[in-house]
Amino acid sequence: MKQRIALFAAAALLGVAATPAHAQFKDADAAKDYREAVMTLMGSHFGRMGPVAKKEAPFDKEAIRANVAVLNTLADLPWVAFGPGTEGGESKPAIWKDPEGFKQAQDKFHTGMKKLNAAAEAGDFDAFRVAFGEVGKSCKSCHDSYREKD
Amino acid sequence: MKQRIALFAAAALLGVAATPAHAQFKDADAAKDYREAVMTLMGSHFGRMGPVAKKEAPFDKEAIRANVAVLNTLADLPWVAFGPGTEGGESKPAIWKDPEGFKQAQDKFHTGMKKLNAAAEAGDFDAFRVAFGEVGKSCKSCHDSYREKD
Repeated sequence: MKQRIALFAAAALLGVAATPAHAQFKDADAAKDYREAVMTLMGSHFGRMGPVAKKEAPFDKEAIRANVAVLNTLADLPWVAFGPGTEGGESKPAIWKDPEGFKQAQDKFHTGMKKLNAAAEAGDFDAFRVAFGEVGKSCKSCHDSYREKD
Repeated sequence: MKQRIALFAAAALLGVAATPAHAQFKDADAAKDYREAVMTLMGSHFGRMGPVAKKEAPFDKEAIRANVAVLNTLADLPWVAFGPGTEGGESKPAIWKDPEGFKQAQDKFHTGMKKLNAAAEAGDFDAFRVAFGEVGKSCKSCHDSYREKD
């Protein structure tokens, strides 16, 4: 019995080793296309709220809530596509040289997103503006450090 | 009072005319980039379930449920980016020449997605396989009619 459990555990470990999270991409190009597609969509869904934050467009609570919900789903997606062996594209080598810094930049973004989500759910314009600014800052500082200029 | 209502209605109509749904894209290229990014992500999130449907990978209920939830969010996004004046990219002119056919193709996809969603929520492998096949067929037939070959 002990032996069976040991075999099972070994098989499970092998399974984990054989299919790391980024193995869902068939090759490095697929991972690059994927993460850049997510960034394109995040930029679009974030950017379209800019006029609202700048008070150039009305604060339509339902539209903002729906848009932030999409952004929230997108916010979880790109990180797994920066796996080992996927260097290049619009990504600076710093992502792989400084994984801790990159992780901290992600954490800042997620912290801002949580606030943006709470503000959107509450329909609170002032909280929305503050959180929108915080998320925007986290995007910019991450891009400054880890994204190649076009 | 009647005049105020009429003015209000006129302003509302003007508002609608001035900001159609696709106006959230700053130009036609932004709309093309957006819809192609959504398609890239839908292809990735759909395609990674292929080995499960083919019984080459285990049916991990929770992973499938989470993945279908992402696909569900993505499924609503691209259509607004096929607005007037955004012809080109990977899209065939048929999208704008045959809007009704394009709409029917979308409806087929959404019908399949509803079944896929129900199967994923229920953790029902047989229903998942059937719905996966139906969604895949709807992707292919829409691409055959409306997407330029690479």
